Amino acid sequence: MGSSSLYLTADQHWQRPGGPILFYTGNEGDVTWFCNNTGFMWEVAEELGAMLVFAEHRYYGESLPFGPDSFSDSKRLNYLTSEQALADFAVLIQSLKKTLPGAERSPVIAVGGSYGGMLSAWFRMKYPNVVVGALAASAPIWQFPGMVPCGDFYKVVTQDFAKSGFNCDTNIRESWKAINNVSSTAPGLQWLSEEFSLCAPLKNKMEVAAFKGWLQETWVNLAMVDYPYPANFLQPLPRWPIQVVCKSLSFDSPVSDYQLLHGVSQAVKVYYNFTGGASCLNTSQTATGSLGVLGWFYQACTEMVMPMCSDGVQDMFEPEEWNFQAFSDECSSMFGVRPRADWAATLYGGKDIASHSNIIFSNGGLDPWSAGGVTQNLSDSLVSIMIPDGAHHLDLRYSNDLDPPSVRAARALEVQYFRQWIRQAEKTR
Amino acid sequence: MGSSSLYLTADQHWQRPGGPILFYTGNEGDVTWFCNNTGFMWEVAEELGAMLVFAEHRYYGESLPFGPDSFSDSKRLNYLTSEQALADFAVLIQSLKKTLPGAERSPVIAVGGSYGGMLSAWFRMKYPNVVVGALAASAPIWQFPGMVPCGDFYKVVTQDFAKSGFNCDTNIRESWKAINNVSSTAPGLQWLSEEFSLCAPLKNKMEVAAFKGWLQETWVNLAMVDYPYPANFLQPLPRWPIQVVCKSLSFDSPVSDYQLLHGVSQAVKVYYNFTGGASCLNTSQTATGSLGVLGWFYQACTEMVMPMCSDGVQDMFEPEEWNFQAFSDECSSMFGVRPRADWAATLYGGKDIASHSNIIFSNGGLDPWSAGGVTQNLSDSLVSIMIPDGAHHLDLRYSNDLDPPSVRAARALEVQYFRQWIRQAEKTR
Repeated sequence: MGSSSLYLTADQHWQRPGGPILFYTGNEGDVTWFCNNTGFMWEVAEELGAMLVFAEHRYYGESLPFGPDSFSDSKRLNYLTSEQALADFAVLIQSLKKTLPGAERSPVIAVGGSYGGMLSAWFRMKYPNVVVGALAASAPIWQFPGMVPCGDFYKVVTQDFAKSGFNCDTNIRESWKAINNVSSTAPGLQWLSEEFSLCAPLKNKMEVAAFKGWLQETWVNLAMVDYPYPANFLQPLPRWPIQVVCKSLSFDSPVSDYQLLHGVSQAVKVYYNFTGGASCLNTSQTATGSLGVLGWFYQACTEMVMPMCSDGVQDMFEPEEWNFQAFSDECSSMFGVRPRADWAATLYGGKDIASHSNIIFSNGGLDPWSAGGVTQNLSDSLVSIMIPDGAHHLDLRYSNDLDPPSVRAARALEVQYFRQWIRQAEKTR
Repeated sequence: MGSSSLYLTADQHWQRPGGPILFYTGNEGDVTWFCNNTGFMWEVAEELGAMLVFAEHRYYGESLPFGPDSFSDSKRLNYLTSEQALADFAVLIQSLKKTLPGAERSPVIAVGGSYGGMLSAWFRMKYPNVVVGALAASAPIWQFPGMVPCGDFYKVVTQDFAKSGFNCDTNIRESWKAINNVSSTAPGLQWLSEEFSLCAPLKNKMEVAAFKGWLQETWVNLAMVDYPYPANFLQPLPRWPIQVVCKSLSFDSPVSDYQLLHGVSQAVKVYYNFTGGASCLNTSQTATGSLGVLGWFYQACTEMVMPMCSDGVQDMFEPEEWNFQAFSDECSSMFGVRPRADWAATLYGGKDIASHSNIIFSNGGLDPWSAGGVTQNLSDSLVSIMIPDGAHHLDLRYSNDLDPPSVRAARALEVQYFRQWIRQAEKTR
């Protein structure tokens, strides 16, 4: 295998020797991008006299073990696992402690969000000798088979839209049938393509299905980034973007399919074209290119099996059951591998993790991933922090004047736990 | 990869549903042989209403992932790691719990001795969701670089001989020079080969060095199996074999090199020919063929780096420093791999394991491997049990009328902890 993974460090506030290290367990993308979107660590560094390390996850960003060939076949992809990533992190930390003057006795705290948050939690579980504790922000460690109902994820999305504008969820729920109706004729297809300013006009039913998938993912992404201030995480967006989106979807009496879909197109353009720079909409992408879509899909096709389903009643999406077999077949044709549905539960403990310690699970009430998160304390030292008006790991972002009190309180509590872990470590070393 | 690993089960005493499972984490050999040498589990099964499972470690016994080609190259050997073995065990247990009627809620306790005991301890550390506790008998989890002095191992061997007969250690210490003297002439070489009834006569200095290595390993093995009753673990032997051996080594005045080496040859024949069936002694083997020597050497050449050294003063061996580079070079020429000296410490925590729970570390005072074992309590639930007059995992063997009280007490205490873990599990499930 080629060169080792990329990592970034910042030590301007580090009180050496022995000052703590905040270690970002990189997720499925460019670590530089995550580094820039994790202001919390930068703000806390000064407070704690901490050094920051941001470690990139193998197979993402620049950390390609076989260079440009890393994704060329399943033999090369074999080394892309969460376990290997954790081992990379452990080896990196031990090597920094050995080679960096002043780091030898530094307590290390893992920090991560989303999949990176899962890694942070798992890192503390598997390597308690390497990290004294972990902040797992918006980490859906229970979004695996048999742990939480598969429909909860889309319920949270739906609730966000329901409370962000009059009839907003109802009109989105109606839109799927409207798309089916309108797309059943050639002129309708053409109208749809033009109304949504699609870069590639829709040509057939399969493309319409993909178009609906793209819309669905757009609503999900909006729920993830429903931040209280203008931000650019997955896309550049106004504050409380779902409220803005819902302004185009607040019809209160029956409207025609065309009127409804015009509302939808206005809505999605808030997400894809808030800056006005997009000449057309590309349905093959829903988020920033800083995320490694292919790598993540491979991980989903091996270990990260996360069942999702919708019923169209408790959520605003077309009913779709979780179909493991179909998913497995797709994985097989794409990568020549089949997912191991139960492996994550066996490896990372599923709901049976109470014997571990020093992990904070923070979750946002607006974040669909909270459905698979730990939202209640499991013990004195496995604690849950809820941020009712927070979206996806809002707590990890830079503080902002428009932050709700709940996220300010969450961050303060997180730092308290950090201090407690550091004190513990000082006592026992 | 080929078929999965072998495992044996015994359920005649199992109280289903829900009765506990004692799970033997197989080590570097035939699991059937370990199964027959772990009478403790058989005796405890009835007491606890437990099912027994003995799982073979991949690459040993019949569990060859690539069949007869499993050792043919380093690509195939890649999958031989302790981590993979632990994952095999976890997957096996989860699958038994799913498919075996009555097993779903059975608490599982890991049991193992020696390397298998290390695996038991590590299994509880890494998969506390799968096993509620572990008995790690004579498990040298600290016999890794930087954790214990490299000379302690041979000191324990020496002490065993010192206390088992007058001048016994002194005469063995003298024997190395006698071998050097006698082997310096051709007639001496021939005499040595005949005196020791070697199958292949010694021809040169390199072979003499190997001969001395074989003798050293013989003394070590005797220390490991210095049991209080006749037993056949590594070899068929009388009770307290070192006392028997030392009868041939109790000269109290200076004797000639030839007299001394005659004593040594009588001594080693106790080990290699107690039954009188050996027509000659084969210096290429020191123990039962049920152990997988090649696989273990590969593991030592990758993860299981265990420094040993001797000084000839505090021990009875020729002075030899621990030479990692020479060892690494040997690994490179043999397997094309080089060991990672620090990986075991990073992966399994080294001395920093206090955050784990429910592990018994039992150690025998006569056992050289106790030098790398946990011989003091680390916490309320990481406990050490010392058996001062026990050799290598005596507690795991069938009980015997000649057992010393210390091993009886150890077994009773171990069962008490088992019961406690089972009660804990019943409370929380």
